[in-house]
Amino acid sequence: MRVLALSGGVGGAKLCEGLAAELTSGNLTVLVNTADDFTHLGLSICPDIDTVLYTLSGRASKSRGWGLSGETWQAMDALAELGGESWFRLGDRDLATHLLRSEELAAGASLSEVTLLLAERMGIDARILPMSDDAVRTVVQSNEGDLPFQDYFVRRQCEPEVTGFRFEGLAEATLNPGLRAQLSREPPDLVLICPSNPFVSVDPILQVDDCWRLLGELSAPVIAVSPIVAGLAIKGPAAKMMAELSMPVSAGAVLKHYTSRYPGLLDGFVIDESDATLLPNLQTPGIQVAVEATIMKDREQKRHLARRCLALAKSAAT
Amino acid sequence: MRVLALSGGVGGAKLCEGLAAELTSGNLTVLVNTADDFTHLGLSICPDIDTVLYTLSGRASKSRGWGLSGETWQAMDALAELGGESWFRLGDRDLATHLLRSEELAAGASLSEVTLLLAERMGIDARILPMSDDAVRTVVQSNEGDLPFQDYFVRRQCEPEVTGFRFEGLAEATLNPGLRAQLSREPPDLVLICPSNPFVSVDPILQVDDCWRLLGELSAPVIAVSPIVAGLAIKGPAAKMMAELSMPVSAGAVLKHYTSRYPGLLDGFVIDESDATLLPNLQTPGIQVAVEATIMKDREQKRHLARRCLALAKSAAT
Repeated sequence: MRVLALSGGVGGAKLCEGLAAELTSGNLTVLVNTADDFTHLGLSICPDIDTVLYTLSGRASKSRGWGLSGETWQAMDALAELGGESWFRLGDRDLATHLLRSEELAAGASLSEVTLLLAERMGIDARILPMSDDAVRTVVQSNEGDLPFQDYFVRRQCEPEVTGFRFEGLAEATLNPGLRAQLSREPPDLVLICPSNPFVSVDPILQVDDCWRLLGELSAPVIAVSPIVAGLAIKGPAAKMMAELSMPVSAGAVLKHYTSRYPGLLDGFVIDESDATLLPNLQTPGIQVAVEATIMKDREQKRHLARRCLALAKSAAT
Repeated sequence: MRVLALSGGVGGAKLCEGLAAELTSGNLTVLVNTADDFTHLGLSICPDIDTVLYTLSGRASKSRGWGLSGETWQAMDALAELGGESWFRLGDRDLATHLLRSEELAAGASLSEVTLLLAERMGIDARILPMSDDAVRTVVQSNEGDLPFQDYFVRRQCEPEVTGFRFEGLAEATLNPGLRAQLSREPPDLVLICPSNPFVSVDPILQVDDCWRLLGELSAPVIAVSPIVAGLAIKGPAAKMMAELSMPVSAGAVLKHYTSRYPGLLDGFVIDESDATLLPNLQTPGIQVAVEATIMKDREQKRHLARRCLALAKSAAT
C-alpha cells in the first residue's frame, strides 16, 4: 500500500514512524505543516518538518518530546550570557539542521529541495514534503491580540486565550510543487490525517491551495485519527484551544470540525478505545468510525495504530 | 596614557590584553582588521574582532590559540554528519556570537554598533572598533589562483604559495565612522601597530580610507611591533608569505615593508631580543628601534611588552 500522511509535529510523526515500519520502502509520503515555521536568529526553522525528520531517522529525543536525543545546549547558554534571545531553545546539534537549511535556502534551493536533502542525509526512506514552498504563517488570535505562532506556543507557553487563527500568506501559497504529479503518477491507497492539532497543524495543510479538494478527489479513502483522547490532547494545546473556542473538548468535536470545514473529505475517523462510548453519537453518513488504541508510547504501539489505519483503509476501499 | 592599537588576531589581541591591564579603564581603543571577515553558513563571522573580544574578556582558549575556552563542537559534528561544510570549525559557544551578530546586522545595526554591543555584553572596558563598517575582503593571490582569505587560511591551511594580496571593497570602504571624531576629541598618546600579520592584518587597516595618513598626522608617535622573531612568525603564515614573496624573513623586512608603503608613518619599531644583532642594520632616520622581549606566553609577558611600548612612546614623544 502507498500512504500519503498529513502531519504536524510530535503526534503525527509518531504515527508516521509506525507507517514507515509497516510499509514497503518508498511507499510513505508525509505532507508536513509549515505554518509553524519561522525565522529566528536569522535561521529558517521548521519545527514540524524537523520533528518528522528526527523521528523517522531515529534521532528524536524520547524523553523531551521534541528535538534531538543526546542534545547539548552550549550555544543557547552562551547566547543567554550575551543577552541574546534564548527563549526558543535551539540545541547545538539541532543548530546544524537550521544552519544547513538556511544556507541552502539562501543559495536558492526551495524548502522542498532542502527537506529532501536533509531526509536523504538522515537516511530516511519516506518522502517528506513541506505542504508548500511558500511562507504560510499561523497567527494566533488571542485575548492579548495577534501573536505569531512561536510567540504563542513557545515564548508564552500557550498561555493567552485563543479566539481564532489566521494563516498569513495562505491565499498566495502554492501546494508543494511535486505533490500533484506524484499523486497522479503513484496514487496513494490511503490519505491519513495524523493525530495532529486540527487548528494549527492540519488546517493549514488542508487549506493551502485548496489541498483538501485535491485529496477529496483521489480514489483513496481519507482517514483522520483524533488527537483528542478522553477529553485531553496527548500533547500540545489542542484541548485548551477547543475549550477557549467554546467547543466541546472531544473526539466528536474534532470530527465535526473536519466535516464542517471540509465537507465530503473524510471516509474514516479513528477514535481512541477510551472514547468508545462516544461511538453512537459519531455516526455520520459516509464516514466509518473506528475505535482503536491510538496512544503511541512505544514503537509497537505506533506500528499497531499504523496497521489498524491501513486495515481500515482496505475495508473503506472495498 | 591613551592608546590606539591596530590589531589583527591572536598576536595583536595578546598585546591588547597587556595594554588593557596597564592602562586606566577606558583609555584603550583597538582598531581591528575586518578583511578576514566572511559569511559562512549564513553567519557573519569576524575572526579578528572575535579573537580580540574573547581575549580581552578572558574567554579565549589558552591551549588552542583560537576560539573560546571550554568550547564544544556538537553543532559542527552534527553538520559534518549531515554532509554540511564543517571545515571552518565554529564551536557551539562561539556560534552564539555569530548568531547574535548576524541577527543584529540583519536588523540594521552596523558592525561597529554590534561590536560595541558584544564588547559591553562581555564586560570589556576597551573600545573595540572594526576598521570599517563596509565589507573589505582579502583575496589571496596564489599559485592556485585567487582564494578568498578563509579558503586560503583555514580550508587550505595556508598551503598555496602566495604571490600577492588584493583587498576587495577597499577603494569604496569608509573608515570606522566613530574613529575620526574620537581621535580629535581624545587624541591618543600612542598609536601601536600590534605584532599582527603585516600583509593581511595590518595593511588592510592602514589602507582603508587612507587611514595611515590620518594616523600619521596625529601628534602621537606611531610604533610597530615586529611579528617576525628570529626569522619565524610566532603564529600564522606571515613568515611563509614573506618567503613566497621573495622577501627576507626578518624583522628588518617588516620594517622595510612599513616604511616603503607608509612613508613617514612610523616613529618607533620594536624587535625581539633574539633579533638584537639586527639592530645596526635597522637604523632608519626618524625611527627609534627598540629591542624588547616580544614573545607573550603569559599575562606578565603581555603586560611587560605593553609597558615597554608605553615607555617607548613616552621617550619618542619627548
